[in-house]
Formats: sequence, structure tokens, C-alpha cells
Amino acid sequence: MSFDQPGGMPDSLLRLVTELARLPGIGRRTAQRLAVHIVRADPTQSQQLARALDMARERIVRCERCFGFSETPLCGICSDPRRDATSVCVVEEPTDILLIERVAEFRGLYHVLGGSLSPLEGIDPDDLTIRQLDARIATDSVIEVLVATNPTMSGEATASYIADMLRGRCRVTRPASGLPVGSDLEQSDELTIGKAFSGRRDLA
Amino acid sequence: MSFDQPGGMPDSLLRLVTELARLPGIGRRTAQRLAVHIVRADPTQSQQLARALDMARERIVRCERCFGFSETPLCGICSDPRRDATSVCVVEEPTDILLIERVAEFRGLYHVLGGSLSPLEGIDPDDLTIRQLDARIATDSVIEVLVATNPTMSGEATASYIADMLRGRCRVTRPASGLPVGSDLEQSDELTIGKAFSGRRDLA
Repeated sequence: MSFDQPGGMPDSLLRLVTELARLPGIGRRTAQRLAVHIVRADPTQSQQLARALDMARERIVRCERCFGFSETPLCGICSDPRRDATSVCVVEEPTDILLIERVAEFRGLYHVLGGSLSPLEGIDPDDLTIRQLDARIATDSVIEVLVATNPTMSGEATASYIADMLRGRCRVTRPASGLPVGSDLEQSDELTIGKAFSGRRDLA
Repeated sequence: MSFDQPGGMPDSLLRLVTELARLPGIGRRTAQRLAVHIVRADPTQSQQLARALDMARERIVRCERCFGFSETPLCGICSDPRRDATSVCVVEEPTDILLIERVAEFRGLYHVLGGSLSPLEGIDPDDLTIRQLDARIATDSVIEVLVATNPTMSGEATASYIADMLRGRCRVTRPASGLPVGSDLEQSDELTIGKAFSGRRDLA
């Protein structure tokens, strides 16, 4: 009896545990708990999950223009005539679009970089969709590029790189950094407090 | 735009998130993270997970004798001639078998009750496989029944019920309760310390 073949677990259950444990953040113990739940639950539930996996794999592609997730060559946002095509929000990952859309503050289009510049990790502009952003700004009539990369070192570096690339061609902005709404000063780190103070607004 | 249809998420991705979020302990945010990982990862990975789900659903049944998970009418443990059929370990759930097998201390067979007695929740002996245990002890030549229900109120009540049912027919035992190996007295609750003291062993 090896560690891979624990007694009392049928092969198909073991295989399900193994596949679930390959998901990020799902350890062996959680995978086992999930597998047992799946096997005990209504069979239509696991059938629907399997079909959802198949459908997502078969249908989801990257949008030709913004590189976000899409089921069509152009995603729902890029093909929506009500969106403001003169404004492009640059994000690191497709999931960032979901977060920003939830706020419903931004009504322009997106551009997914696929990460952020990190010379230490060997991530150069060519590993991201920075050339495609360049071409897009040259072709489309974009007035403002809002660079919403993460407020991390590599996110800031990427924002600077894009700002340099687009300087004089359109307005390049960055979301405000500062104290999270509803937070305490006490809970904030020094960098955030520093950003909040240097970016202070006049109230009176 | 409703909460169910967040912008920027294709339908098939949304469906995958919804199905993943139905798993126990997987919230909406985790489901989204998993779905995005699945869509971005090697497609064979999600294919293998979908196939594992299908296989587990199609193949896993309950063992006719012990009610554990199995792919055959009799599970691997019940059909293994090297196991000691005179000793039966009674557990609440099929997953308890996996835990006990990992320890490799017990070499007998199992009997899965499917839960524990709980009059308050309306769980009677007929809701569990207690009748089947009774029949099994009557038919098979069982010498010892080790009742390994959980050391909880309902687990203890179930153990008492089974002990009463089998009294005089075979030996009925219960795993020792006490201080977990490697733990501090300080970390243990009063009930556990009480059990540990009343069940103390002679050392000299």
C-alpha cells in the first residue's frame, strides 16, 4: 500500500481527489472532502460541473481586441456600442475586468496585459500585450489610457513604461492610491499612508 | 446588469463559477479564482477533471456489505481474504474508513452507519444501517465489534445503542478517549482531560 493508493478508496474516487488537488489552493485534504461530497451528492450536480468544465474549455477564447475572456472573437464589452471607445483601461489580468465592471464606474474599453513587467522574473514587454496596446492606440481614436495595473512594484513599473510609450499621444492616467474606504489608519501600511498624504485633496 | 450576470464574464465562465460555488466550503470568490485558473490552464487539466467527475459518478456505489464506497458490489476491503472477518469496525461515514486505513492499525472489516443517532435531528436507528449491522453480526462469525463513532454526544449515544443491541452476542469495544499524542494538557478541553484521567493506564 503506497501513499498514492490509500486503502479503502476506490480508484475513480482517488482519481477525482487527485484532479481536484491540482486546482490552486486545494490541498489533498480539501480535495478528499470535495470528492466525497461530490460522490454523495445528487449525481446531476457533478454532471453539471463536468459539463460546465467542458463548455468553458470549448467556448472561452481571448478577445481579439482587449485579450479579455470571451466566447466570440470580440468580447461583449468591446462589441458594445454604448461603451466609450475613446477611453481604454489597461489591466494585468482578465479577472481585473470583472472587479472593475462590478464597480460600474468605468464605461470605456479594456486592454489585458497578461501580467506586469518584471525583469527579475524575465517578464519583458514582449511577454505582455504591450505591442498590441501600442498598435491599438495608434489605430483607434483613444483619448485616455487609464493604467490600472496593481499598485505593486512591478505594476508601477509597467504603468511607467506605458506612460513613456504613450507620452504625447494620449492622456495617460493612473487610479488614485490611498487609504481604503472604511479602513483605519492603524490598519494601513506606511507606503499606503505615504501615498494618501502625498496625494491629499483640498477640502476647503 | 444583475448580480448574476456580472459584466465582462462570458456565460460559460459564469456557469463554471456557479457550479464550483455549489461545492461545500467554496465561496463565490474562490469559485471565480478556480474557474479563471481552469480556463487559463492547460485544457487537458479541465478535461481530466471533467472525466474524473463522470467516472466517479458512474462507477462509485456503496459496498453491499459494509456500505463504504466501492466500484464493485463488494468493496476492496470486504473482498480481501487477508482481512480479519471476525473483527468489524463501525464508523459513521465512508471517509472514516480512509482515515483508519491510513493508520494501518486495524485489519478487520468495516461497517458504515451513514451518520449517528440524533433524536433531536430526527435521526433514528432506521435512518442508519443499524439493522444491517444487526443482521451481519447474526450471520457472519464476528467476535469483536469496535464502535469507532465520533467521540461526540451523538457518536457516544450511537455506540451505547449498538453495545446494548449486541450485548452477549460478541465483544463490543470503543477506541480509547484521551489526550491527543503530542498535545499539551493546556490545549485540551475538560471533557478530554476527564476521559484521559478516568481511563488512565498503569505504568508501574
